[in-house]
Amino acid sequence: MTGKTMVEKILSNKSKSMADVRQGDLTIVDVDLMVCHDANRPQASDIFKEMGGDKVYDPDKVKLVMDHAPGVPNQSASGIHAKMREFSSEQGAELIGPGEGICHQILAEKGEVGPGDLVLGTDSHTCTNGAFNAIGVGVGTSDLAAALLTGKTWVKVPESFQVELEGSFPENVYPKDVALEIIRILKADGATYKALEFTGEAIKSISVAGRMTISNMAVEAGAKTAIFPFDNVLKDWLEHSGYKKEMTEISPDEDAKYERKIVIDVSKLRPRISLPDQVENITDGHSTEGLPIQQAVIGTCTNGRLEDLREAARILENKKVAQGVKLFITPASRETYAQALEEGIIEIFIKAGAILGVPGCSGCSGGAHFAIPSDGDNVITAANRNFVGRLGNKKAHIYLASPAVVAQSAVSGHIKIPEEGGKTAS
Amino acid sequence: MTGKTMVEKILSNKSKSMADVRQGDLTIVDVDLMVCHDANRPQASDIFKEMGGDKVYDPDKVKLVMDHAPGVPNQSASGIHAKMREFSSEQGAELIGPGEGICHQILAEKGEVGPGDLVLGTDSHTCTNGAFNAIGVGVGTSDLAAALLTGKTWVKVPESFQVELEGSFPENVYPKDVALEIIRILKADGATYKALEFTGEAIKSISVAGRMTISNMAVEAGAKTAIFPFDNVLKDWLEHSGYKKEMTEISPDEDAKYERKIVIDVSKLRPRISLPDQVENITDGHSTEGLPIQQAVIGTCTNGRLEDLREAARILENKKVAQGVKLFITPASRETYAQALEEGIIEIFIKAGAILGVPGCSGCSGGAHFAIPSDGDNVITAANRNFVGRLGNKKAHIYLASPAVVAQSAVSGHIKIPEEGGKTAS
Repeated sequence: MTGKTMVEKILSNKSKSMADVRQGDLTIVDVDLMVCHDANRPQASDIFKEMGGDKVYDPDKVKLVMDHAPGVPNQSASGIHAKMREFSSEQGAELIGPGEGICHQILAEKGEVGPGDLVLGTDSHTCTNGAFNAIGVGVGTSDLAAALLTGKTWVKVPESFQVELEGSFPENVYPKDVALEIIRILKADGATYKALEFTGEAIKSISVAGRMTISNMAVEAGAKTAIFPFDNVLKDWLEHSGYKKEMTEISPDEDAKYERKIVIDVSKLRPRISLPDQVENITDGHSTEGLPIQQAVIGTCTNGRLEDLREAARILENKKVAQGVKLFITPASRETYAQALEEGIIEIFIKAGAILGVPGCSGCSGGAHFAIPSDGDNVITAANRNFVGRLGNKKAHIYLASPAVVAQSAVSGHIKIPEEGGKTAS
Repeated sequence: MTGKTMVEKILSNKSKSMADVRQGDLTIVDVDLMVCHDANRPQASDIFKEMGGDKVYDPDKVKLVMDHAPGVPNQSASGIHAKMREFSSEQGAELIGPGEGICHQILAEKGEVGPGDLVLGTDSHTCTNGAFNAIGVGVGTSDLAAALLTGKTWVKVPESFQVELEGSFPENVYPKDVALEIIRILKADGATYKALEFTGEAIKSISVAGRMTISNMAVEAGAKTAIFPFDNVLKDWLEHSGYKKEMTEISPDEDAKYERKIVIDVSKLRPRISLPDQVENITDGHSTEGLPIQQAVIGTCTNGRLEDLREAARILENKKVAQGVKLFITPASRETYAQALEEGIIEIFIKAGAILGVPGCSGCSGGAHFAIPSDGDNVITAANRNFVGRLGNKKAHIYLASPAVVAQSAVSGHIKIPEEGGKTAS
C-alpha cells in the first residue's frame, strides 16, 4: 500500500469507523471546530432545531461569528445577530462580533485552529484553515446543523493534487499571485472536490498569512480543501497565537498518491490580475496597466491581514488616493486593526484618503452593504471573487490582484504594478 | 425703531431689495454657501435641470457632500454618488466624500463658513452653522435648486427667541444637556419658524464644538435657525480653521426685539436624557439609570467632534464595552478621525471593543445602513432624534444623551451617569 496524503492522514485520525481511510472512501469523522456566520439564512441553528436538536454536542467546539454584516447595515442583519445571541446564550457557544473580524482570521488569532484539525464552517472560504496544517471545509447549513447535533460529519475522502512551490519570490510577486496562478492553471472547476496539498522549498519563505491567502483561494478552483504541511514557520506562529492543544504535525508520506502534480516556480511569476467576470480570466498584470479605475478595495479573508496592510501602507505613505477613486480598506480583524494602529498604518490610510471599513467581510460581498460600486465602475480588489454582481452592482467590473497592485492603482487612478526597486510612482 | 436681532442684521446685509428687513418681512437674499448631500431623492441638481438650469450661479458657493451614505452601502447610494460626481465635474462645484465627514463639520473645518454668512443646505441640521455667527437654514431640494440657479433665496425673516445662558457648567453637564434642556422647555414644536439667538455669560465657556451641538438641535424644537454671537472664542477658532473671508461680526443690538426670552442657568442643570419616542420627552438622566441597553452610539453632527470623542475616551480608557452591548462610534470627519488617532483616542476605542464607523452620518439615520438595532433593543445615542424607526428599526427604543453618558452606559450595560469626581464606574 502506498503512503498517505495529508488529507488521508487527518481524516484517518478523525475517523472512528475506519482507522485507515483512503481517497474515495466514505467515512464519518469527528469535527474539531464548527463555525457558523451571519450570512446564512436559515441559520444552522434553525435547522438544528428543526432536526429536534436540544443541546449541541460540544459547545466549546461551536463558534458563532458575526462577520458578514459587521456594520449591522439593516434589520435583516440585526435580526440574525439577535438570533445568534440567543442561540449562544442558550447553548453556551461562543459568540464573536460584530466588529471583531472575519471568522477564519479571528479563530486562528485566538489559537482555536492547529495542525491535524478538521474545521467545518458555513463559509465557503473555510479552506483558509489549510494554512494551519488543518483541513477546513465549507459546508451548507444542513451539514453544519448535523455536526452541531452529533459532533461528527460524513465525508468522502478527496483525491489530492500536489502543488509544488519552487524558487524564491521576486519583487512585486506575492502569495496572492501564487493563488491566482494556481487558478490560471486549474481553471475555476479544475479541482472540484479535490484537495490541494502544498509542497516544495518555496513554502519556507511564505508566512502563515501568505499561506492563508493561498489556501483561501483554492475554493475558487473548486477545491474542497487545501493544506500546507507542518513546519517551523507554522510552529512559531501557533506558539505566538497561544494555540494550546498538543500539535499533531501532519506531513505527507514520501510515496503519497496524488491525482495530479502542478509545479510553480515562483521566481518566474509576474504580478497576476484576474479580469472580469471570471476568476480564471488571469493575465500578466502588466498587460492591464493603464486601465482607469474608480474604486479599489483592500481587505477580506484573502488579503486583509497585517502584512497586506503593510504593503498597502508602504505604497500609500505620503500619497493621496487619485481623484475620482474611492479606496476602501478593511482590516481582517480587530487585532489586525490594533496592530496596524500601533505601526502607524491606519494613520497612513486616513491621511491618504482611504475609507476604513469595520473589521469583517466589509468590501467583499455586496451583502456587507459597504463599498458598493457605481454602474460602470472598474474596481480593483484584493478579494477573491469577481463574478458579475459580487460587490452588489451587476454593472461594475471587478479585477483581482495583490494588495500592492491595488494600492498602487488607487494612487495612480488606473491599474498599475508598483515600480521595481521599492519605488512607487504616483 | 428698535434695534435689530442678529438674524435681522444678517438678512438685512444679504437683502438687496430692502436694506433694513425686520421680523415678518418677506425678502430676497444672497446666499453665501449652498450645500447638497446624498440623501436627497431627487437631488437638487435634478430639479435645477428640470427648471432649465444650465450653469449654477456661482460654483464656488456650491458644495456637494456625500455624507449620508459614507460607506456606500447599496446601489442607490453609489448611483446618487455617480450623479453627484457628474454634476460636480460639469459645474466645477466641489465634491466632498464619501468618507470625508458630515457636511456641517467639514465645511466649517475647511474655513467655508464664518460670521454673517447665510448658508442653505438640504440637511435639516444646517442650523448647526449658527455656531459660527452665521445663519444656517435647512431647505428642500426645490428651494436649493432655485438658489443654485439664482444665487438667491426668498425668506420670511423669522421672529427671534432670546436664549440666555447663565452660570458655569457643573461636572457631567455638557452643551448636549443645554440643547436637551432647550427642547424640554420649548417642546418639539415650540420654536416653529423662529430663530434662537443665544446670549449670556455662559457662552464664553462653551467651545465652538459645543455651540455646534446646541445650534444643531434647535431644529428639534422646530426652529428655522439658531445663532451664537461673535466673540473671541469664535475668532480664534476661525483663524485656526483657515477662514479666509473678512469677518463680519454680528451681535444683537441692546434693544433688539425678541418674541420670547428663555433663561437657562447651566450651573443648575443635571445630565439630561430624552426618552423614546419623542425628543421632547426629557428627564433628569439619573431617573433613568439602571435601564439595560443593548446598543450605544457616539457620533453624528450633534456629538461626533473631537471633544466628544475625548469625553468618551476618558470613560472607555482601559475599559471594555459590557457584554451584550454594541458600541458604535463615528468621528464627524476625517480630520476628527486623524486628530483622534494622534491623541490615542482611536486606540482606546478599538481596545474597548467599539465598532468604528466611516466619518459621515453613520449611526444616525437608518439610511446610512450602519448600526441598525435588533428588535426590542434599547439604544442610547449621542445623536439628535429618537422617533420611532429613526435608526432603521421601528421596534428599537432610542434614548438621547451626552457622549459621556452614552460611553458610561456602554461600559455599564445599562444607562448610567458617570460618577462625579472624574471617576467612572464599570
